[in-house]
Amino acid sequence: MTQVAILGTGLIGSSIGLRLRAKQVYPDLRIVGFDRYRQSGQAAEKAGAIDRLVNDPQLAVREADLVILSAPVLSNHWLMEQIADALKPDAVVTDTGSTKAETLRRARELLPRTVAFVGGHPMAGKTDVGAAAAEATLFEGARWVVVPPADAPERAVSAIVHLAEQMGAEPMFMDAEEHDAYVAAISHLPLVAAITMFRLVRGSEAWPELSLLAAGGLKDSTRVAGTDPALAYDIIVTNREQIAHWIDRMREGLSELKHEMLDPANDESLFKLLAQTELEYASYRAGNVGREHASALPDAGGFDFSSFLMGEAVKQKMQEITHAQEERLRERDAERRVRREI
Amino acid sequence: MTQVAILGTGLIGSSIGLRLRAKQVYPDLRIVGFDRYRQSGQAAEKAGAIDRLVNDPQLAVREADLVILSAPVLSNHWLMEQIADALKPDAVVTDTGSTKAETLRRARELLPRTVAFVGGHPMAGKTDVGAAAAEATLFEGARWVVVPPADAPERAVSAIVHLAEQMGAEPMFMDAEEHDAYVAAISHLPLVAAITMFRLVRGSEAWPELSLLAAGGLKDSTRVAGTDPALAYDIIVTNREQIAHWIDRMREGLSELKHEMLDPANDESLFKLLAQTELEYASYRAGNVGREHASALPDAGGFDFSSFLMGEAVKQKMQEITHAQEERLRERDAERRVRREI
Repeated sequence: MTQVAILGTGLIGSSIGLRLRAKQVYPDLRIVGFDRYRQSGQAAEKAGAIDRLVNDPQLAVREADLVILSAPVLSNHWLMEQIADALKPDAVVTDTGSTKAETLRRARELLPRTVAFVGGHPMAGKTDVGAAAAEATLFEGARWVVVPPADAPERAVSAIVHLAEQMGAEPMFMDAEEHDAYVAAISHLPLVAAITMFRLVRGSEAWPELSLLAAGGLKDSTRVAGTDPALAYDIIVTNREQIAHWIDRMREGLSELKHEMLDPANDESLFKLLAQTELEYASYRAGNVGREHASALPDAGGFDFSSFLMGEAVKQKMQEITHAQEERLRERDAERRVRREI
Repeated sequence: MTQVAILGTGLIGSSIGLRLRAKQVYPDLRIVGFDRYRQSGQAAEKAGAIDRLVNDPQLAVREADLVILSAPVLSNHWLMEQIADALKPDAVVTDTGSTKAETLRRARELLPRTVAFVGGHPMAGKTDVGAAAAEATLFEGARWVVVPPADAPERAVSAIVHLAEQMGAEPMFMDAEEHDAYVAAISHLPLVAAITMFRLVRGSEAWPELSLLAAGGLKDSTRVAGTDPALAYDIIVTNREQIAHWIDRMREGLSELKHEMLDPANDESLFKLLAQTELEYASYRAGNVGREHASALPDAGGFDFSSFLMGEAVKQKMQEITHAQEERLRERDAERRVRREI
């Protein structure tokens, strides 16, 4: 018999449970679940993501060959403390938390030498949370970051790679600092930007009118402002420096765009910037990701930029803008001439 | 017979056409369409949004009682120039552009005194664009901002209010500057923030890895970076100052959040901020908008904040954070005592 403990039975933990059972990943599998919030555990039981729900994390791990910590980051650390003395020798412990450096440090401090810890982070999710939203297919096609400590035994690393593959995901090795720097850019910056933007607009005196007018743009752009505060908090306090770095870059980027935007003399390069961004975004959304697509698009600064842009509409717009700028320059020259004559 | 001219047959123009025909809004209706891009006009014809496609905007408006300019803002201005001499006396002209102050100015300059212009802006849209994505139901439940110039004749204002209502939308009167300030917050700030964020991440040396890892968060938050560059450009250059103002506020907001985040002494207020944001966001998404919900949520600074928060999980988290901070303070005091003793 293989026993798996899932500690934290929200969307991610429950989706893992559903998949393990659907794919019969381990022979004679038994999944024991625990969640600090009884209701969450019961929802996982009801969804069929676990075989048995227990009230005590020690009880959940006592016979477990594989322990999966799938609560928010700081709760995972708390769970490590709770289960340390109860873990079976040779058990493999992994997690699915959003940040990794702090978790690897805590695992080294808290877990006994008789067990092996390998960090993990499945890069999947959805708007709805909790066991009720769990799906066996949640991880299909997603990357599953695997973060082994330097001294991790080969069998433990293989076990987590195998787990990721069985979930339908693609394992991707990374060290903890590298992971945390990357997710700061693609996941935590969008989080803090959405929070900031929503708070600004929500805090405006015109909010009654703004809230009536706000259509799709604001809702999409600020969706992650609705992240469970416990999850958001754990992410932020375990990745402060990296997030601060990207906040600085975002502030610089906004400053540059503002400069580009305020002076009509920059209109041509503003349009180039917008056209290139749209192209690159479309390419990204079309799935052109990874090393092979890194430099697929030329630099917008190149002089034949407009000829490479496919759409007739974009080319025509470019000509109009250039024309309008020439007109403006001519007008200014004419004004100067008039002034000189006076 | 009532003749309507739709100039610009993209998502908005075509959705108006479909609705006009579906609801038989005018007796014996005939819709003539024009688009600068032949393909776009043909798509509208194919979708059944217009009765006849013409090659010349003058031809489209010559017999029209109602003229709807539904191209991007600067194209609407170009269209006004083109049609000025061909408009039927007493025709009502409106637009659906994203900014209003500049358009009202241009209408005053370009259109003959024999016609009446009333600005409009339906606050609806979707990810897919073009006539193929058009729907007769697109505007249902949305606000339709109506911006009449001070001297607009009553019959013209009524005509546009009637149009908005027939589209299933709710008309909302506003002056042009007010409108442009509002949309800068709820629509243009999300646009420039998404563009900035996507460009930062896309421009990173780690883009090959980042693009592989990026899951839902980045995609949602940057979706509007995929806006048609001609549309985005027209918005930005006709609302520069207002957008610049919100960029400044966004930069300040990011700065404040960074400060809050970097110092562990602020962890408690950071969590309060996140919890309150999530609550307010959930309330907004649940449709609690407008004047009556303006102050439905108490200030997070209040001392009984945690008791007002409904979730048990949030309350517990709050206690943990307070406890952790007390621990940290005790440790610091202990260290100080040790240092003194040495």
